[in-house]
Amino acid sequence: MRLMPVTDAMFLWGESRETPMHIGGINLYTLPDGVDETEWLHEQLALLRQSEGLRRPFSEVLKLTPFGQYGPIRLEPDRDIDMHYHVRAAALPKPGRYREMFELASRLHSGLLDRTRPLWEITLISGLPNRQIATFKKVHHALMDGAASIHFYNSMLSADPGERRAASPLSVEAYEAYKRLFPPPKKPARPSLTDIKAIGDFLKEQWGNSVGVTKAMNQYLAAMFGIGGEGLATPFAGVPRTSFNRNITGARRFVAQSWSLERVRAMGKAYDGTINDAVLGMCAGAMRKYLQSLNELPDKPLKAMAPVSIRPKDDIDSGNSVASVTANLATHIDDPATRMAMIQESMNSAKAQLRAMTAAQIQLYTAITSFPMMLTALTRTADKFPAYSVTISNVPGPREQMYWNGARLDGMYPASIPVDGMAMNITQVSNFRNIDFGITACRRSVPHAQRMIDYLEEALVELEAAAGIKKGK
Amino acid sequence: MRLMPVTDAMFLWGESRETPMHIGGINLYTLPDGVDETEWLHEQLALLRQSEGLRRPFSEVLKLTPFGQYGPIRLEPDRDIDMHYHVRAAALPKPGRYREMFELASRLHSGLLDRTRPLWEITLISGLPNRQIATFKKVHHALMDGAASIHFYNSMLSADPGERRAASPLSVEAYEAYKRLFPPPKKPARPSLTDIKAIGDFLKEQWGNSVGVTKAMNQYLAAMFGIGGEGLATPFAGVPRTSFNRNITGARRFVAQSWSLERVRAMGKAYDGTINDAVLGMCAGAMRKYLQSLNELPDKPLKAMAPVSIRPKDDIDSGNSVASVTANLATHIDDPATRMAMIQESMNSAKAQLRAMTAAQIQLYTAITSFPMMLTALTRTADKFPAYSVTISNVPGPREQMYWNGARLDGMYPASIPVDGMAMNITQVSNFRNIDFGITACRRSVPHAQRMIDYLEEALVELEAAAGIKKGK
Repeated sequence: MRLMPVTDAMFLWGESRETPMHIGGINLYTLPDGVDETEWLHEQLALLRQSEGLRRPFSEVLKLTPFGQYGPIRLEPDRDIDMHYHVRAAALPKPGRYREMFELASRLHSGLLDRTRPLWEITLISGLPNRQIATFKKVHHALMDGAASIHFYNSMLSADPGERRAASPLSVEAYEAYKRLFPPPKKPARPSLTDIKAIGDFLKEQWGNSVGVTKAMNQYLAAMFGIGGEGLATPFAGVPRTSFNRNITGARRFVAQSWSLERVRAMGKAYDGTINDAVLGMCAGAMRKYLQSLNELPDKPLKAMAPVSIRPKDDIDSGNSVASVTANLATHIDDPATRMAMIQESMNSAKAQLRAMTAAQIQLYTAITSFPMMLTALTRTADKFPAYSVTISNVPGPREQMYWNGARLDGMYPASIPVDGMAMNITQVSNFRNIDFGITACRRSVPHAQRMIDYLEEALVELEAAAGIKKGK
Repeated sequence: MRLMPVTDAMFLWGESRETPMHIGGINLYTLPDGVDETEWLHEQLALLRQSEGLRRPFSEVLKLTPFGQYGPIRLEPDRDIDMHYHVRAAALPKPGRYREMFELASRLHSGLLDRTRPLWEITLISGLPNRQIATFKKVHHALMDGAASIHFYNSMLSADPGERRAASPLSVEAYEAYKRLFPPPKKPARPSLTDIKAIGDFLKEQWGNSVGVTKAMNQYLAAMFGIGGEGLATPFAGVPRTSFNRNITGARRFVAQSWSLERVRAMGKAYDGTINDAVLGMCAGAMRKYLQSLNELPDKPLKAMAPVSIRPKDDIDSGNSVASVTANLATHIDDPATRMAMIQESMNSAKAQLRAMTAAQIQLYTAITSFPMMLTALTRTADKFPAYSVTISNVPGPREQMYWNGARLDGMYPASIPVDGMAMNITQVSNFRNIDFGITACRRSVPHAQRMIDYLEEALVELEAAAGIKKGK
């Protein structure tokens, strides 16, 4: 029995029929030569369905007090776990293209997880051509964030195509073996009395002293009210209302695509920027094109919430450990190079701001600055006061070619959470030589999510051309 | 725009994550010779996905006032209907047996319908052997009861294997063609002032006069408190608490099987009873065996809620038109013939009671007698005060061998609604020469629902033997 941290519980509070709070995604694999597909799938199904020695959080069920989700939430082992419920087999209808796969994933990602059971599902998907198979995983965000999810995948994958594992990827055994690859964990940074005092002072004195958080908050608020802030983008302030900012419905559309990591990196470098800057540039360009196609490109720039992992390298156990910065997407600017410069300026300001704080201060700061956003979500006014235009999240994945019991990992497409007022989420996972984009959108507010894939490519080509480099390999 | 009747809206009020209120089921077909499966399926998909000229309720979306579901609920045409959302294609993983089909149906039946869209889904299922294909339909009970659902199926089916229809089975065109087979509808019976006065008098005077309803209510309450009632079974009174009477979770298990209608009818006749009596006898025997296997057979008999359609023959438009009677399942009695006699006695008493009332009076009576059950559902105390042990519902289906654009209808397996305190629902549809049983259960409270199929057969054999007839054809 353990208590769920409040930062995890927030994802239970914010959940509704229209806003399920689970993350997930498709992993795509090619089977090794000489292996029978049905046999291989049944072996993995059998392994995944072993209920003995299951690791947490897969083994744990919510235990609520009479105060329900708003009281203390405990997690306890589920003594009656039904592995056939959690581990499913599905197949694609003919012709079994990626299109049918993404249709299935869209349906699987819609709909709530059952709160009377451990909050996860895995579906093994057959019926793809060319010896490919896929998995779709769905885990509540209260249990795992994107980085924790990658830790889980890494624990089940291997860089050795010949390696076969006898233990379930969901077992304590597999998890402990994986954890041994890391230095023994230090205690995670928790806010100290000084940190709390700093925030307390801030709240009492209305930004009156000069510790890191207060400075950051001052700078933040100054930018929000347009009196300084040196390029820092802030939520709410001047965020235009587009069709990405409607209150959402419960059905999802999930589409995905890979780009060459080298190609994206080269584009970023040409602007003296990072891969992350390059990705934001692609997303900004694509959203600009999307809104242009609907004749609703606003005069003011879209702003993206860009979650930043604040997880120490040795912390692989926390459910959530994320701060967020605001990226100005400069979508009102036609010239790709000027647009890119403005995006980078906002990111550099935000990063400088975070660097001035301790991890614990960042945590508190994040809690405080995200409060107004939660308020609009709970009052369902997020469509009228959008905090951001979109979420764009970048999660570092495996750096080598990975294999799952011999099956080559071809793609790792993340599905995440649209919320009221932010009907689209773009998440990327870097996976060996690729960067895998997953776009998760409210099916009603963003009916043409598929077009975003083409627009991302067009935006990349445009940025390459503006930087004077040819379309990459 | 039309107003939803209160008797339909009740199914929205009672809905929660754990208790989705939709009905559905599998229809199983064999493709005609010489037809390509993929081609045939794509033709049906294309027809089903036509959004033009869609009939209600498939075309309508809920329109709530600020009072939400408890205010007046209107239904209006959905101007932005996404047919690819409602009409889905799915395939079974290998080996594609009925087992995989029922696993998929269990998953499809779990989970809520999206209230921001018309409240239905149809999934076309491929991947079965022997040229079989299946559909799984899911419609909110607020829009359709079992009988309305059969009207829908009948409108898309034909007794002529050669008939091919160019219109969507969901279209006004198909529906109007079907309606022309019926005499022009009379106005449905509505409670008259006299009826309402009768109920009002009853409520005011605490069962003091002698009109039909009051008499029935008296008899009913007398039986409930054990002071008469001549064999009439009543809810609540002495209903034993078994594992069928837990508060339920959101996940379902759906299993199904066909029996020969002739065989079931012959068994019923041997006891001077109806097909419905025979079915109740099978269910009683099967539930007795199930509880015996868990070592929890109670001393007191289980009681079944047996919905009775009060729909006039010419009314094919109402969403819900159902009363319910209580069947004493006599599960405490070991001897099959004695058990059968007690079941029949309770059904005959209940029917005699209903016959003494007008349709309008039955409606009011049903509303009043079902109120305590709704109260226990809303207060989540249904597990402590179970109104019934189980729901057993019998719906008349097609009387001939039917075809869907040439595909032979092999089975029509209904999926229905378990609720708190009644974790299992057994519904049957008579279909040409068969009676198709569908068992829908909470996946946690009734984990061995599959065994019910074997127990139903065993119970039938036992009743045949006790009546001195051999196992039927």
